[in-house]
Amino acid sequence: MQKIVNRLKRIEGQVRGIQKMVEEDRYCVDILVQISAIQSALKQVGFSITERHINHCVSDAIKQGEGQETIAELMSVLKQFSK
Amino acid sequence: MQKIVNRLKRIEGQVRGIQKMVEEDRYCVDILVQISAIQSALKQVGFSITERHINHCVSDAIKQGEGQETIAELMSVLKQFSK
Amino acid sequence: MQKIVNRLKRIEGQVRGIQKMVEEDRYCVDILVQISAIQSALKQVGFSITERHINHCVSDAIKQGEGQETIAELMSVLKQFSK
Amino acid sequence: MQKIVNRLKRIEGQVRGIQKMVEEDRYCVDILVQISAIQSALKQVGFSITERHINHCVSDAIKQGEGQETIAELMSVLKQFSK
Repeated sequence: MQKIVNRLKRIEGQVRGIQKMVEEDRYCVDILVQISAIQSALKQVGFSITERHINHCVSDAIKQGEGQETIAELMSVLKQFSK
Repeated sequence: MQKIVNRLKRIEGQVRGIQKMVEEDRYCVDILVQISAIQSALKQVGFSITERHINHCVSDAIKQGEGQETIAELMSVLKQFSK
Repeated sequence: MQKIVNRLKRIEGQVRGIQKMVEEDRYCVDILVQISAIQSALKQVGFSITERHINHCVSDAIKQGEGQETIAELMSVLKQFSK
Repeated sequence: MQKIVNRLKRIEGQVRGIQKMVEEDRYCVDILVQISAIQSALKQVGFSITERHINHCVSDAIKQGEGQETIAELMSVLKQFSK
């Protein structure tokens, strides 16, 4: 998980960078390109956590014959995530 | 633009909050819900900046009969943004 | 699966409706609203099939201790889907 | 616009192809890959129509000093589109 924390620290820095760009009244398109870079990075973090979740919680629940609820919960988070 | 800077500060705090959740080994689904909240917030910031950009730079270029290049640039950033 | 086929038939009809709107030179914004309705409908179909896939193939593989490859494949399709 | 109609005809055919895949009970992941291909294609059509809209309606409104309402409408359709 340290890898994920490190990626989140980098994302935090990128968000701070955008604040500075906005305050310095930098060109809108350059700011938008940075925002879309953060969104890609966040999505990657989301996928890593989703994969981890499926490999652990979801897999364990399925092995114990209790997958249904966990899978429904997973689907609901995937739907929210893809909005 | 102060409103946008404030929103970015809130997003920065949310990213830090997720780092903590990951370090404390909180439930993956709760982390994913938080990440998708940040993505929505970032998207809103992106839209505000896009609207501002269209209202200023793009409109000015169009009025001066030089819209073509600016619109092409806008489309390219919208495409990247929607990935 | 009949429910999914029916939804796909409705989507097919919606796509045909958009062709007509384009040919009749209807207002762009109205066409875009229709396209985004189709995208929502397709996304719903995608989620239904994903859920079905997790409930069957992925669950079976996990129960047989062979989840790893199937989960990797699932993640890769989720990533492509969210682009 | 004929180019856009042709692309929509291809998309219509792809949707029909997915119906067949579902009826033949083809592998879920293969179906999902096809659905995500249609979504990409639809997105491209959406971008073409958006660009056309900005180059014509939005530009005309801006030139006549009446951009505000048209830009607000554009933003609202972009938001819906990115859901």
